[in-house]
Amino acid sequence: MSIRIGIMGYGNLGRGVECAIKHNPDMELVAVFTRRDPETLKILTETAGVYRAQDAEKMKDKIDVLILCGGSATDLPVQTPKYAQWFNVVDSFDTHARIPEHFDDVDRAAAESGHVGIISVGWDPGMFSLNRMYANAILTNGKDYTFWGKGVSQGHSDAIRRIEGVKDGKQYTIPVEAALEAVRRGEDPELTTRQKHTRECFVVAEEGADLARIEQEIKTMPNYFDEYDTTVHFISEEELKRDYSGIPHGGFVIRTGSTGWNDENRHVIEYSLKLDSNPEFTSSVIVAYARAAWRMSQEGQTGCKTVFDVPPAYLSALDGAELRRHLL
Amino acid sequence: MSIRIGIMGYGNLGRGVECAIKHNPDMELVAVFTRRDPETLKILTETAGVYRAQDAEKMKDKIDVLILCGGSATDLPVQTPKYAQWFNVVDSFDTHARIPEHFDDVDRAAAESGHVGIISVGWDPGMFSLNRMYANAILTNGKDYTFWGKGVSQGHSDAIRRIEGVKDGKQYTIPVEAALEAVRRGEDPELTTRQKHTRECFVVAEEGADLARIEQEIKTMPNYFDEYDTTVHFISEEELKRDYSGIPHGGFVIRTGSTGWNDENRHVIEYSLKLDSNPEFTSSVIVAYARAAWRMSQEGQTGCKTVFDVPPAYLSALDGAELRRHLL
Repeated sequence: MSIRIGIMGYGNLGRGVECAIKHNPDMELVAVFTRRDPETLKILTETAGVYRAQDAEKMKDKIDVLILCGGSATDLPVQTPKYAQWFNVVDSFDTHARIPEHFDDVDRAAAESGHVGIISVGWDPGMFSLNRMYANAILTNGKDYTFWGKGVSQGHSDAIRRIEGVKDGKQYTIPVEAALEAVRRGEDPELTTRQKHTRECFVVAEEGADLARIEQEIKTMPNYFDEYDTTVHFISEEELKRDYSGIPHGGFVIRTGSTGWNDENRHVIEYSLKLDSNPEFTSSVIVAYARAAWRMSQEGQTGCKTVFDVPPAYLSALDGAELRRHLL
Repeated sequence: MSIRIGIMGYGNLGRGVECAIKHNPDMELVAVFTRRDPETLKILTETAGVYRAQDAEKMKDKIDVLILCGGSATDLPVQTPKYAQWFNVVDSFDTHARIPEHFDDVDRAAAESGHVGIISVGWDPGMFSLNRMYANAILTNGKDYTFWGKGVSQGHSDAIRRIEGVKDGKQYTIPVEAALEAVRRGEDPELTTRQKHTRECFVVAEEGADLARIEQEIKTMPNYFDEYDTTVHFISEEELKRDYSGIPHGGFVIRTGSTGWNDENRHVIEYSLKLDSNPEFTSSVIVAYARAAWRMSQEGQTGCKTVFDVPPAYLSALDGAELRRHLL
């Protein structure tokens, strides 16, 4: 019998989850819940229904795991604990600083209702976190580096679009190759924000807008751009659509460290991702963890978990013997 | 209270484990067991004792985890099940084809005695296996590649040394850069053995030996060299000592795959290691898994486990809250 999945929220991430379920024959999409009018929502899976978000509770016996595809700012802090009352849940909560608080909220709700909630699943937090953790446990004397990109930052793209005179825009975060190379060579560099990443913006301006002012506003924007070397390109709406419509991303997690009685030997552990579609890759990770949530729940486990708590084998559709035979 | 560790076998790996324990303040080396005369064995840890292998059983209440540092060919198939009678054990059994059988043997012994045995720990099998498994669970439609090197292959170095007229020798396995690049570009190449790795040999010949014959014997040796492009360099004993005394290794695990309703988006997941000392890195992984073995045993778990079964958090000396705060 397949694992029955529900999706809460049908944006890029929700659609990515739908696609990932298609790639996992032991899973089945049962329902998509939306705050929009269900009549107006077209989904890809013919066998799944579209329902109002507020009707989710009624389907609690028809869904094994509910995947929450809302945003971290306002949706997930409310939704994940709320739906953990009725469902095993998985989310991709990615506000690193607020993870401890979110964990506690979900843990309380899931423990009380007897469900499993896995939070902060994706690639960062998620696969990058796992690689940081494994590498730290192995090389206890070492140094961590995370680089992001080349890829589109949604938050920075939104920030550009809020500037007066900007019709549309996209921001690419780019790791500085020389910094990456210094880390790989084991030089343990101390890197400033500016030395690690550059930012490149592609901006469609309104007709007659003051381009110099827009460029200046972007480059000096606190938190988002002022600490970076930023390049601004003004392009046409057609160019933006044609050349920059994807949502690629990726990055690098590197730990360098030493072993030996006198720390005489050096090692470099590197994990990297190069993704054509950030939301589809994130969704693919989430769906594997939905399988794990279901299995842990079947075993009688309850409460909040993160990627650190989940035995790797629980993510795979293969059984233990197959995994040992083919992948160990 | 620290976790009390015993080491069975004091070669490169055993010494590496000793060094790794020094890097983990929650662990303590209690005993080294050897088949040699204990009087002749000098270890680095002043507070640990050296004992005969056959006396290990007597120390079963003084050791929390026994780390087996013998070879996979003849030692571990016997030792790991045997010592699982009395101890929680960790080994680095690396004969991939015989893992299922070894797993069953250890599982039987450990389940019966109520201990935990974690087998095939290191980097391949070990961290490479984990990365293959995670990547397969995420990108269900994709292709796996593993490259080894640049590094010293012990088996191939031994094979060279068995040739008549060879006094000493070392073999380096080198991944073919062009093949790696084709994989990274997502070209999904079908690669022959020859296209993935080359082999480079540094050989010290006996005085007056027939170099042409030695070179020919190496290059045509079945299984070891005949399917590879092999280079043979004859050097002096001094050069071998001076320039090739280390045991570096490393490699790359790459999975490329696609997501999307029609598999329209491509992704590359890459994990790589660059190690100055193969045995010390392997040992560092093993020691982290010894911590996990102890914790799983404390929880009442029994039987044989692999890296696929161990929740990542169990490897770390940090607790769950710290991990979530600092590494998630």
